[in-house]
Amino acid sequence: MALAPRRPRRLAIGIPASLVSEVPHLREKTLRIGLVGRAAAIFRAEEIRIYFDGMDARLQKDARLISLILRYMETPQYLRRRLFGLRPELRYAGVLPPLRTPHHPTRAKISQLKLGEYREGVVVSTDSRGSWVDIGVEKPALLPEPKVKGEKRITVRVSSIEGEKVMVELASRSRVPHYWGYVVPRPEQSLKELLSSGFDLIVATSRRGRRLADVSEDLVEDWLKSRSILVVFGSPSRGLYEIAQSEDFRLDDYAHYVVNTIPVQGVETVRTEEAIYASLALLNYLVDLHGTPFKKGV
Amino acid sequence: MALAPRRPRRLAIGIPASLVSEVPHLREKTLRIGLVGRAAAIFRAEEIRIYFDGMDARLQKDARLISLILRYMETPQYLRRRLFGLRPELRYAGVLPPLRTPHHPTRAKISQLKLGEYREGVVVSTDSRGSWVDIGVEKPALLPEPKVKGEKRITVRVSSIEGEKVMVELASRSRVPHYWGYVVPRPEQSLKELLSSGFDLIVATSRRGRRLADVSEDLVEDWLKSRSILVVFGSPSRGLYEIAQSEDFRLDDYAHYVVNTIPVQGVETVRTEEAIYASLALLNYLVDLHGTPFKKGV
Repeated sequence: MALAPRRPRRLAIGIPASLVSEVPHLREKTLRIGLVGRAAAIFRAEEIRIYFDGMDARLQKDARLISLILRYMETPQYLRRRLFGLRPELRYAGVLPPLRTPHHPTRAKISQLKLGEYREGVVVSTDSRGSWVDIGVEKPALLPEPKVKGEKRITVRVSSIEGEKVMVELASRSRVPHYWGYVVPRPEQSLKELLSSGFDLIVATSRRGRRLADVSEDLVEDWLKSRSILVVFGSPSRGLYEIAQSEDFRLDDYAHYVVNTIPVQGVETVRTEEAIYASLALLNYLVDLHGTPFKKGV
Repeated sequence: MALAPRRPRRLAIGIPASLVSEVPHLREKTLRIGLVGRAAAIFRAEEIRIYFDGMDARLQKDARLISLILRYMETPQYLRRRLFGLRPELRYAGVLPPLRTPHHPTRAKISQLKLGEYREGVVVSTDSRGSWVDIGVEKPALLPEPKVKGEKRITVRVSSIEGEKVMVELASRSRVPHYWGYVVPRPEQSLKELLSSGFDLIVATSRRGRRLADVSEDLVEDWLKSRSILVVFGSPSRGLYEIAQSEDFRLDDYAHYVVNTIPVQGVETVRTEEAIYASLALLNYLVDLHGTPFKKGV
């Protein structure tokens, strides 16, 4: 199966810090946060932004938990222990579904490595020849650069394979042509700060928004003109209009589109992670439909 | 908030018995099955059909578990204990998210009942005046029909409220104008049997299917001509083409459409419950878009 290409436009999703505040147990919190990570990966979002949807001090803790679990999940398995160690918040990380993205290879042997392939790695030691990088195979690969600091993820590219000797070169994560996971930027911001942080296009989702069908053509046109896009979601207990109001601003002044992606929902409340799947599926479909040249104008 | 109307066309979803076979713990199985129930309710599906995607005897047990948890979840909370009692398979039912559909009212007081409203109920006793039905308020309501058997769910409509005396009349579940939950028909069938069971329109989902965008207009046109529609999903480990092949038939001979609803997915495998959210969101959108008269032809 070919590796999924990176999106030509940077897609971020915005989620509230209260995402799992009312879920009582860490185990179910973990799984629900995992669903958000999966959705980001399925639809190739490159950023997950957590915003504070209230002043409650507990939201600080909740945001840290979401951030930690999302970053853990996005880290290739072979690097997790080294980068995260053992933390009580990761007690139930075993229930997280694997991402199965291009940057989480299942091939763990040197004999399965491909020349030119990209890998995430961490420097485990240095010597006169350079830095030795764990790239998820039996032995570390040699990066002929002595100055790379350890304990931090780097992206490398396999430059030579001779028997069991693997050499890699540094690569820029943002230049990898495949979908290469997401980042979870910190520190978290208020909703207003998030909406003011320079995205070319902001799509807010709300049950009280306009029917997506009524604005889809304009929205896709704007999408295709944008380099960075934010799709932002409300919380399980409060919609984006209410959160904006409590921050004393009008959502429509900050979002380019406020859309309802689930016309005639059968339930009273749609949870954030459910709305993420539904909304990203629709936007992904619409952009694919209108963004493919030979279908343009359809 | 107005109650969600019933779909004018009966929508069923088909899911594999192996849905959670590889999820090790009952607790996470429960939550993941719960996501399917939620998706059905959000998108107003009225049937969830479980099919056997293999011969393994364990699939019998897995299908029973899915069926039990889905039916439990669809039952209004005030009837659950009476209809299901305590069963080990329901040990983690506490992690199930509430459906919050019109037939799961949060109003639990007679003073909050509305004349003419529909309720699910169970007969708890009978006397010379008729049957007494638990409809989720402080006291049973009187149904002036002596022959209704207990321990079975019935649908009733509130016909009079005088102080604490509530009278109800029998109603037909299929005539309730609101979305009124889903059923999980038994016995379960093979995929081929399911696809041969009389649906007017069958939409199969597969990564190897056609791009939904390329068939959407025909599909919606057929949708609007159909009275019963089945949208069927593969398993986490095998797609519908493979399952059909192992049953010795060609999927395209039985499904009217085989569509890929997630173009350019960023992950290697999309789980069944994830595909359900994405696919139903898209079909719901398309039918709403093209099915609304004033938008016809768009």
